[in-house]
Amino acid sequence: MNTMKGTEFASIREILHPRSVAILGASKDNKKWGGRLLQYMTRHRHDGKLYPINPKGGQLMGEQAYPSLAECPAEIDMAVLVLPSHHVLSAMEACARKKVRSVIILSSGFSETGEKGAALERQIMDLARASGIRVLGPNCMGVLNTQHRLAATTAITMGYVDELPVGSIGMVSQSGALMGAMLARGIDVGAGFSTMVSLGNQNDIDQNDILEYLIDDPATQVITMYIEAVKEADRFVCLLKKARQQDKPVLAVKSGRSASGGKAVMSHTASLAGAWPAFEAVCRANGVVLFDDVYDMLEGAMVLNGGARMAGPNIAVFSGSGGGGALIADSLEEAGLALPQLGDATRQKLSALIAGSEISLPIDFAAMKPGVPADPTFTSPIAAIVGNTMADANVNGGIVYLSTLPYMEEVALAAIEVAQAYKKPLIVVYGASSVGEKARQILKDGRQGFVNNQAGAIKILQALWNCARMPAPDADAADPATPQAPIAGSGFLPESESRKILEAYRIPTSPWRLAGSPDEVIAAWKDLGSVAVVVKAVSATLVHKSDVGAVRLNLKNEESLRQACLSIEQALQLAGHRLDGFLVSTMIKTDAELIVGIQRDPVFGPLVMVGAGGILVELLKDVQLCPAPINIKQAEAMLERLRCKPMLDGWRGAAPVDKRKLAMLLVQVGSLAHEQKHLEELDINPLIISDGDIYAVDARIIMAGREP
Amino acid sequence: MNTMKGTEFASIREILHPRSVAILGASKDNKKWGGRLLQYMTRHRHDGKLYPINPKGGQLMGEQAYPSLAECPAEIDMAVLVLPSHHVLSAMEACARKKVRSVIILSSGFSETGEKGAALERQIMDLARASGIRVLGPNCMGVLNTQHRLAATTAITMGYVDELPVGSIGMVSQSGALMGAMLARGIDVGAGFSTMVSLGNQNDIDQNDILEYLIDDPATQVITMYIEAVKEADRFVCLLKKARQQDKPVLAVKSGRSASGGKAVMSHTASLAGAWPAFEAVCRANGVVLFDDVYDMLEGAMVLNGGARMAGPNIAVFSGSGGGGALIADSLEEAGLALPQLGDATRQKLSALIAGSEISLPIDFAAMKPGVPADPTFTSPIAAIVGNTMADANVNGGIVYLSTLPYMEEVALAAIEVAQAYKKPLIVVYGASSVGEKARQILKDGRQGFVNNQAGAIKILQALWNCARMPAPDADAADPATPQAPIAGSGFLPESESRKILEAYRIPTSPWRLAGSPDEVIAAWKDLGSVAVVVKAVSATLVHKSDVGAVRLNLKNEESLRQACLSIEQALQLAGHRLDGFLVSTMIKTDAELIVGIQRDPVFGPLVMVGAGGILVELLKDVQLCPAPINIKQAEAMLERLRCKPMLDGWRGAAPVDKRKLAMLLVQVGSLAHEQKHLEELDINPLIISDGDIYAVDARIIMAGREP
Repeated sequence: MNTMKGTEFASIREILHPRSVAILGASKDNKKWGGRLLQYMTRHRHDGKLYPINPKGGQLMGEQAYPSLAECPAEIDMAVLVLPSHHVLSAMEACARKKVRSVIILSSGFSETGEKGAALERQIMDLARASGIRVLGPNCMGVLNTQHRLAATTAITMGYVDELPVGSIGMVSQSGALMGAMLARGIDVGAGFSTMVSLGNQNDIDQNDILEYLIDDPATQVITMYIEAVKEADRFVCLLKKARQQDKPVLAVKSGRSASGGKAVMSHTASLAGAWPAFEAVCRANGVVLFDDVYDMLEGAMVLNGGARMAGPNIAVFSGSGGGGALIADSLEEAGLALPQLGDATRQKLSALIAGSEISLPIDFAAMKPGVPADPTFTSPIAAIVGNTMADANVNGGIVYLSTLPYMEEVALAAIEVAQAYKKPLIVVYGASSVGEKARQILKDGRQGFVNNQAGAIKILQALWNCARMPAPDADAADPATPQAPIAGSGFLPESESRKILEAYRIPTSPWRLAGSPDEVIAAWKDLGSVAVVVKAVSATLVHKSDVGAVRLNLKNEESLRQACLSIEQALQLAGHRLDGFLVSTMIKTDAELIVGIQRDPVFGPLVMVGAGGILVELLKDVQLCPAPINIKQAEAMLERLRCKPMLDGWRGAAPVDKRKLAMLLVQVGSLAHEQKHLEELDINPLIISDGDIYAVDARIIMAGREP
Repeated sequence: MNTMKGTEFASIREILHPRSVAILGASKDNKKWGGRLLQYMTRHRHDGKLYPINPKGGQLMGEQAYPSLAECPAEIDMAVLVLPSHHVLSAMEACARKKVRSVIILSSGFSETGEKGAALERQIMDLARASGIRVLGPNCMGVLNTQHRLAATTAITMGYVDELPVGSIGMVSQSGALMGAMLARGIDVGAGFSTMVSLGNQNDIDQNDILEYLIDDPATQVITMYIEAVKEADRFVCLLKKARQQDKPVLAVKSGRSASGGKAVMSHTASLAGAWPAFEAVCRANGVVLFDDVYDMLEGAMVLNGGARMAGPNIAVFSGSGGGGALIADSLEEAGLALPQLGDATRQKLSALIAGSEISLPIDFAAMKPGVPADPTFTSPIAAIVGNTMADANVNGGIVYLSTLPYMEEVALAAIEVAQAYKKPLIVVYGASSVGEKARQILKDGRQGFVNNQAGAIKILQALWNCARMPAPDADAADPATPQAPIAGSGFLPESESRKILEAYRIPTSPWRLAGSPDEVIAAWKDLGSVAVVVKAVSATLVHKSDVGAVRLNLKNEESLRQACLSIEQALQLAGHRLDGFLVSTMIKTDAELIVGIQRDPVFGPLVMVGAGGILVELLKDVQLCPAPINIKQAEAMLERLRCKPMLDGWRGAAPVDKRKLAMLLVQVGSLAHEQKHLEELDINPLIISDGDIYAVDARIIMAGREP
């Protein structure tokens, strides 16, 4: 579809900065979309020229209208189509004749409604491509470019504001309504936007095009995205890397997280790594701050747009109410954040401002001493309290709970002053309702923003910290010692093959031998040191060995080994599988079990996976994913984020695991995933932790295709 | 402290309905608290008489002031003290001389500030008790009683509203500021209050007093509480039961949930059942709807006050935006709620209103068909969409996401209409910012309320459902077959004693014998059927048997049994413990492990506990608690709520557990907890699930005291 995009086509920048715009379907009735659009565009008067097109011609909202595009005397850079869907094709033909460069189709009734609409959309887009017209939409809410004063959008918020909310937050959205809701909210809390784009059906201009524009746009400092699906994942990931290089934060909300749950599964790993987990892992690895609510995302964008960055999980809490502060403190820990100890110097400074024998967080403004002398660093005692606390090196962020107080305005001013001074995230929880209207206006005018409840503040700080603590991938991620020839074979590989591949990538396995007969099993056992061993069937046709009784554990003498071989033979015969031999491996004492593996996501490619193993797999669903290849820091961060981390730290009297070795194993798995393009899935289950060491004791590899 | 409370003292009802009120510390300066209070009380003019007391006398805000209480010509029912703390004692003396019935002390500077303040508070309260004066406070924000038009509160919201928010939501709060914040929010969203009380230091009138008043108050239909600690837990629980009997919902927010984390622990169970879990269990068992945010609690109260009740977890989602609906759907499942299938009849009705081949949730208003004929049951097509959906028997509640749309007012009106018609919780997520001001006003005027984000709506529905699904305790909770004599002994009981007690309460244990010598161990093994057995040391001094090697598993023959006995003897000698004999028990094959036990909370008494066992104890922290005794329905509900529930349902090829038997075991544990008043702790760890059956294979009981 994109093959026809070439230099002869308009660039995205050109489309978002048209010198002349025609509105096809313009109306004087602002109950109609064509009237609303004209109203918004005239009200916010863009920098270029405007030509309403309406069969009746005449004056529309003070603008000269033309009966048809052909009759319009000027060259038209862009046409905005706000017509019933059955008029769109002929309008496009008119655009083609007029040599219009780009078109925004606001109309709906196309592929989103079914096959009939899709056919019409195809006709329209074929015409557009043949005519060299770039198209945004159809079925979108258009574009707001505050830099160029272009309000080519049907977002009704444009009808309620006199001034465009100019600023440097960019947005690209797969939902027009959510873009509109964010715009309205942004205006209420003092956010400023550079460019907002509603994508619609993305038949030509797509999410990546706009993302790239926003990364390159000097007016945009922070990028927000509402995403339903990712097309061209490679380009998406490249763009995320580019944004990170330019220190331009990307924030995203994605819907459809729950859809992944219902898919059929082939293995434990597959059951845990659906579409959303892969998206999440890719975003996390590439520095995207993820939210599940667009309003929280907006507030997060305001924080980052103000230049604040989060260097740790320690949050100071301020409140005019002991109860309000306590409730926030209660919720912090559950979110992986903490209420820090303040340093001695900070406490000393605060004790001049606050009554009480021991100064600690959360801080209650109600304990403020009366008649405190002015501190030249700050404009008010409240600002001095908040500022001295936020300046503490132990504090990485803050929450100010603003409830109904006599000094609400002072709290609002203090929050703005301190947030700007220290560049640490400081979120105001606005809980004063209409009573605090003046304070709310101060927060808006100061472009400080706010959220309406403690949960929002905590989620935003959690999202910022989750993102900040994730190391970036780097060029030398893959382990240079490992490059291997491509693996031959297709489908399920036998365990012995899988073990050989692991060994080639220096992934430690339990000692093992292959044996063709019970006698060879005995010999292998002796060769392994006559220790307790496991005997498993080797069979090209058998995938789930345990299910048919083809695995025998803890065998310590010849008799039990022979018995085991016999029973395995019988079990395979019964289940109708061919027995190709036996795999004899040393029994490893289990202190804890992990699962480690590779998943190849159809969109995002190979991901390294590590999680709690054994019975915890299903109950804990405690899995970390990261796109391959990964470096050692990424591997360590994955381990750090496991909920089963206590198992690694010397749990229940066991030795702590060699974390460096375990992280290195993940790096090596990442190299394997990265190099072996035809590997579909690797499942090391379990990876046993034993006396601090690690052993893959079972491994399953699935290669792509039926033929090698 | 409460011994002096008698009939000669004023009742709480009398205190909240005074005929005459004096304000000590009244001022004409409404920047001072004494001025604010006078302003609020005159503005909202209570039904009784008002007497400002100020040394200068004269007119204050249009009221005749008196230089002293003594000079006030009338009888005074209540005095409100808004004076510096060092003037409060002499003011109380004046009140005593004037024979004032009750006093609200708004002043702070008492026990909340340290020992000096506490001493002053004691003096004041001694005087109050000696004089028969009931006291609310000190250090509180007073009382709002809209029925009696009594605004004896310094909540600054009173200065911003012209009309009292009359209604039937009651509140009792241990934080004045949070009460004030809820009041302000309530006014913004259309909530109405009956009585709100800020408790302060609760030196006389306490939380239970006000709770009881609100339960008895005919003007109150729903009770909200902000709690920091519970005093007199027995009375608290009795009151909760009384409220439930009268179908008067109680909603609560408690702070200090995280404080329990740091406590030292004696066992797994103790580490999991701190103060918050006990409070939560008691509230849950007694029908309290729990929140972690006062604003969410307020919205929950509005829903319940409107008569809606939640009979299941199935939520319909409505939105004017596909994206907004999808995001809400994504979050529902994580909260234990679900998006149901609509019935055929509903879908048929909706297909007349909504375009699209298949009608399913979430519903997007944007798909509404134009020009739909009027449905006489509803006032608008939007109301018909929402109403027909909410009427579906599969739907237990709803969320309407109101974003910026041309028809916002219609959506708001539809929500009000349908919420009133079906008495199912229908929460509006108001996401239209100032753009939707008219719709917001409609929601307020319709007393529908709203929340500001999807997370709030989901938390409220989750809280309502969590509460609704918990069966009530009943009179015949204890198992009638179990009454037993009091257990003798103190401190740790040996396992053999603990097992006998379990058996007396018909709790199944693994078959076992006591043996005094290795020979007797062999005999016991034979007596148990020569199956694989476990041998453990019996020792009065040894608590953690596994730690010293005093437990040997899976012994199958004489030789290994003798060896085990020898090694146990040596281990105990080495550890310095006396060996009193051996406990031989049948080895039980483990399909899954639970822990079951009893915790005696210092505040709330004995609680039955069940949770995931084995390595899951620490990682999953998956525990359900319920105050003892419990009935079979409560036991079943506890099992239903376990995250490890898949383990019970026939997991990994194992037989499903006999749920009735397991629930009955919990009932029997509850009887044991209830009857044995000196039992401090019972720990059945593990309770093994084996082929669908259950066996306590280790048990530890701790009795109170050093002496029997």
